[in-house]
Amino acid sequence: MTGDGSYERDRAYITTRITADGRDGYPVEPGRYRLVIARACPWANRSAIVRRLMGLEDVLPMGIAGPLHDERSWCFHLDPGGRDPVLGIEWLREAYEAREPGYPKGITVPAIVDVPTGRVVTNDFERITLDLGGEWTAHQRHGAPELYPERWRDEIDDVADKVYRDVNNGVYQCGFAGDQAAYDRAYRSLWERLDWLEERLGHRRYLVGDTLTEADVRLFPTLVRFDAVYHGHFKCNRHKLTELPALWAYARDLFQTPGFGDTIDFAQIKAHYYVVHHDINPTGIVPRGPDVRGWLAPHHREELGGRPFGDGTPPGPPPPAERVPPLGPESATGRGPG
Amino acid sequence: MTGDGSYERDRAYITTRITADGRDGYPVEPGRYRLVIARACPWANRSAIVRRLMGLEDVLPMGIAGPLHDERSWCFHLDPGGRDPVLGIEWLREAYEAREPGYPKGITVPAIVDVPTGRVVTNDFERITLDLGGEWTAHQRHGAPELYPERWRDEIDDVADKVYRDVNNGVYQCGFAGDQAAYDRAYRSLWERLDWLEERLGHRRYLVGDTLTEADVRLFPTLVRFDAVYHGHFKCNRHKLTELPALWAYARDLFQTPGFGDTIDFAQIKAHYYVVHHDINPTGIVPRGPDVRGWLAPHHREELGGRPFGDGTPPGPPPPAERVPPLGPESATGRGPG
Repeated sequence: MTGDGSYERDRAYITTRITADGRDGYPVEPGRYRLVIARACPWANRSAIVRRLMGLEDVLPMGIAGPLHDERSWCFHLDPGGRDPVLGIEWLREAYEAREPGYPKGITVPAIVDVPTGRVVTNDFERITLDLGGEWTAHQRHGAPELYPERWRDEIDDVADKVYRDVNNGVYQCGFAGDQAAYDRAYRSLWERLDWLEERLGHRRYLVGDTLTEADVRLFPTLVRFDAVYHGHFKCNRHKLTELPALWAYARDLFQTPGFGDTIDFAQIKAHYYVVHHDINPTGIVPRGPDVRGWLAPHHREELGGRPFGDGTPPGPPPPAERVPPLGPESATGRGPG
Repeated sequence: MTGDGSYERDRAYITTRITADGRDGYPVEPGRYRLVIARACPWANRSAIVRRLMGLEDVLPMGIAGPLHDERSWCFHLDPGGRDPVLGIEWLREAYEAREPGYPKGITVPAIVDVPTGRVVTNDFERITLDLGGEWTAHQRHGAPELYPERWRDEIDDVADKVYRDVNNGVYQCGFAGDQAAYDRAYRSLWERLDWLEERLGHRRYLVGDTLTEADVRLFPTLVRFDAVYHGHFKCNRHKLTELPALWAYARDLFQTPGFGDTIDFAQIKAHYYVVHHDINPTGIVPRGPDVRGWLAPHHREELGGRPFGDGTPPGPPPPAERVPPLGPESATGRGPG
């Protein structure tokens, strides 16, 4: 929290990179690493999406922390015995401690763990998706799209910066504001930016160029959580996403694109925010709404043109072990840790 | 709270009546009584509406407790000096204590106070609206509607009972549930009843008969607070009211009918719930949304026929001192007590 009541995200991540040339000591290598995400977390969601789009499911297996945690942060309470079956740990903290005993910063997902040593290599969520796209090229599926093409990088960076500040992080600044004035400021910035996005997406299918890019990957996890969590829990309630025609159709279009909606588990998303944020929901009761079946309604965004995968193709379905539950009128709540 | 986590409303009210024949010692008499409401409170809202529909503004003046209170309950923090200008009291509790020293039950609005003695006569909210309609007939405006006609009483009572249990009180049972199971039960009952109402109002303009009745007066205060408060704060979030076509058009129709929408102050409504319910919103931050301007959109309910005021007429505008603020994209928050 800053002096003026605003919420400030700690952005001190482990910046070691996994690269094709292995210059940080961690070369790209099939089966060596484990991507740890939580279905609940929007920052981890980006990695899960890009891994799907690139077809890296077999070469970079994924561990899934459950939605609930205590002050010790993420753990594997959904796995048999409460342990990740490959890393053998109960708490993700163990992999951070293996990297640096007494690790003093946030225990966050996504994290990529070096399986042989059990150490976290990186948790730098922006770098992770860029590197899944740019460094793992030798192992990507045939038809993997280019999400960060040279000629669009400046525009992608510009849009993504605005979206990060006002939307991705902006919803947290609404929800974690320390006082009314800080909330009011965050609310204004959020809605100015959503209005700007609504306008931009009214006449173009994707945020930058005419294909899916990193800019879309970064906006989607916030939009998909908007009505389920941010609207009520974080008080981002001028409108529901479903009341913003272009953004809602855009979000549905992405949801229905292989690699996006198939990473979403609404029950885990809601359980995480409503149970873990005791300060803003002390009862721990998880809302049964909203009815999420509308995500499957036709979006008609094809009429705007666009080539979703550019010269590439959509990915196939996710591996059976990674399938998420089908959408229902209500989403059941997650199970508790331990 | 009951043993199974459900919220139970204490319905022990002061049942003394103000009647035309004065049989309880309190005869109907212009200028003798003061109706105390709070703009925030849905139970008090009913009295404010019926007083308007009956044209009783001059004969039964109104005091308005502010939206905020502490454990001492309602007070007049919006009035100059923090005192009701006629009763001269700061806390409504004083009028309850004048009636019965050490008054042990809830200090609630609406309450009708006998001005000469400063004593609460009644706070029995269901009886109050029926008596404003049935006992104050000698002083009602020309054209006042009949809200509880003999021939429709059984049906009005039946509908109102269902609406009370599942909707009026049902939203509180969602919001104040002591555990997930109690919340889940209340949520199911609420939405089953709202679906029933949506169906019923799809082919008829009003709940009972073809005119406004007590049944409509009782449903409206909950609907008008739904998106502003109950949807997020009480987790009644399967849909917003704006997503239920018949109920939303019905609610707009009532809102735009003189005597209904002109009793509504969204800023006071939100300030009350979000600030006073510290247990479910410990930060006390009041959401800026929703955008409430949609309440003025055309509703097209005239196409269903109906005669809003039966053989009567709509009331004129409210007295200048009782005007509520116009609708905006955001509603400002209330001021604190004291």
